[in-house]
Amino acid sequence: MSGTFAGRVGAPMPAEGSLAFRVLHGDVRAAARLMRLIDDALPEAEVALRALFPHTGRAQLVGITGNPGAGKSTLVDRIVALLRKQGKTVGVLAVDPTSPFTGGAILGDRIRMQDHALDPGVFIRSLATRGQLGGLSRATSDCARVLDAMGKDVVLIETVGVGQDEVEVCKLAHTTVVVVVPGLGDDVQAIKAGILEVADVFAVNKSDREGSDRTVRDLRHMLELNHIVADGQIEWEIPIVKTVAAKDEGVELLWGQISKHYDSLRAGPGLMKRETARARSELVEILRERLLHVALTRLRQRGGELDELATRVARREVDPYGIADAATNSPDLR
Amino acid sequence: MSGTFAGRVGAPMPAEGSLAFRVLHGDVRAAARLMRLIDDALPEAEVALRALFPHTGRAQLVGITGNPGAGKSTLVDRIVALLRKQGKTVGVLAVDPTSPFTGGAILGDRIRMQDHALDPGVFIRSLATRGQLGGLSRATSDCARVLDAMGKDVVLIETVGVGQDEVEVCKLAHTTVVVVVPGLGDDVQAIKAGILEVADVFAVNKSDREGSDRTVRDLRHMLELNHIVADGQIEWEIPIVKTVAAKDEGVELLWGQISKHYDSLRAGPGLMKRETARARSELVEILRERLLHVALTRLRQRGGELDELATRVARREVDPYGIADAATNSPDLR
Repeated sequence: MSGTFAGRVGAPMPAEGSLAFRVLHGDVRAAARLMRLIDDALPEAEVALRALFPHTGRAQLVGITGNPGAGKSTLVDRIVALLRKQGKTVGVLAVDPTSPFTGGAILGDRIRMQDHALDPGVFIRSLATRGQLGGLSRATSDCARVLDAMGKDVVLIETVGVGQDEVEVCKLAHTTVVVVVPGLGDDVQAIKAGILEVADVFAVNKSDREGSDRTVRDLRHMLELNHIVADGQIEWEIPIVKTVAAKDEGVELLWGQISKHYDSLRAGPGLMKRETARARSELVEILRERLLHVALTRLRQRGGELDELATRVARREVDPYGIADAATNSPDLR
Repeated sequence: MSGTFAGRVGAPMPAEGSLAFRVLHGDVRAAARLMRLIDDALPEAEVALRALFPHTGRAQLVGITGNPGAGKSTLVDRIVALLRKQGKTVGVLAVDPTSPFTGGAILGDRIRMQDHALDPGVFIRSLATRGQLGGLSRATSDCARVLDAMGKDVVLIETVGVGQDEVEVCKLAHTTVVVVVPGLGDDVQAIKAGILEVADVFAVNKSDREGSDRTVRDLRHMLELNHIVADGQIEWEIPIVKTVAAKDEGVELLWGQISKHYDSLRAGPGLMKRETARARSELVEILRERLLHVALTRLRQRGGELDELATRVARREVDPYGIADAATNSPDLR
């Protein structure tokens, strides 16, 4: 299966034996190494990513998000199994934008994926936040690009939670599945929180639980209230699919809807629009990151180390806006 | 009640009649106007914020976070009532880092706060995300500063969810309360997700529900496992308080723990450390935002509009790293 963008025609092949070359040839160890470089935000990563860039754009990117406890990992596990049966190769990025303390959560989930551990057609990787100076969606985007360059047909991006970070991560995907569970509270607040904007497909997982019909009804009602037609790019009525991932129920139906959405995107200008939106936010992120380094260097030259300055701000001796002025208001920066 | 930082001694008073002047004198309409300016990221906001800055640092900042449906709004409502009984003035910032679609969620919650609508000692304000170019934690920080400058004794910052955004927002507070509810799922994943790092106090809300003892036990176990002593700045064993906000149970106990934590901070170097950490991340945010504008202007001058460039990236004609190079790799930006 190949997408619309099969890479730029006549793109130069990276030098033989280089990291990029090895990734393009599906070398698992090279891919793992590049992802580590990305995680650590090392400059070597960028060299390889630039070389890979013209060769990317083939993979189908699917985001899976939802509140903690919704059963996303199990669902991803089942989707992987289904795709493997269809002969597709799969990459999985499990994004946990949380503290180092909670690394165990993802690790525990990944144990469920161990069925796929020995399958060379599956590549699984967990990504955690790199703290304030790095961008999680940036790292995720870069890692998805590595899986794409490796030749994976489908890249599943699983994110924990539904905050702004997850929304950003979901914007990387062609299709975003929002997973909810029945009876999450007396109100539907859990469903409201910022996810309508990114949902292309809803999965009501654990739908053998009481209240699943009500959840479906509430979701449908909410979609109608908000007149949501998936970001206006294509004619698409957001489907709501009932699943019981633990029993492997509804997974084929769900994947059917995901495929249908992707096909609709590819049939029109939708795919290009999504790719452009993604490129736009990626550009902004890269610029932001670079310029921060510029600014910190400049601060150091002109005002002092960040920590010193922060102490002076905490003491109310200087205000942060004034410091930012000093760092940016020079004629060469206007 | 006044904190350690009563503002810089001898700080100049803003010009009479100016927005900052009026905010300092507790003018509600001026404060609302300044917050709108902050929300819209207008330059006038910065002028006023700079004038206010030396007069801030008195308010006690308390963050309330937790998953959707945990009953945070009700809890905040009860805390406000308690503080008002104690004669304290209160500001509330309800942060919903979600889409414009979901504005209704916050609005609905705020209706519960209507008891306080006519009380001049309470100022309530909802904040939503301003999209990718603005920083939510930056806007929240600025608005908290306005409430502080207005003379509010306590500022409560309520955030929906527990993603990285919320973690950033919580770092603004002196004390962060994480609200959980019993029986959120078969696993304690809901509790794990990135919140241990920011919690100074746990509230197990809706604790009249089944399983609340187990939730308390699980939390305690997790804290022990992770050897958490609230960010190492003070000797502080994170307390777990059972509440039933809807019945006004446990709220005084909870506030007691919040006060105790704040007092511990103030008794030692903890408060200054938190203020410094906050100033540090604020400085980074301000710099980032400014420099992004610089870079976008530069892109426009040298390469083209962002949208054009994004389209070229989507077509794989150029790579985003190359564009960032063009925008930042000039001698004056090193």
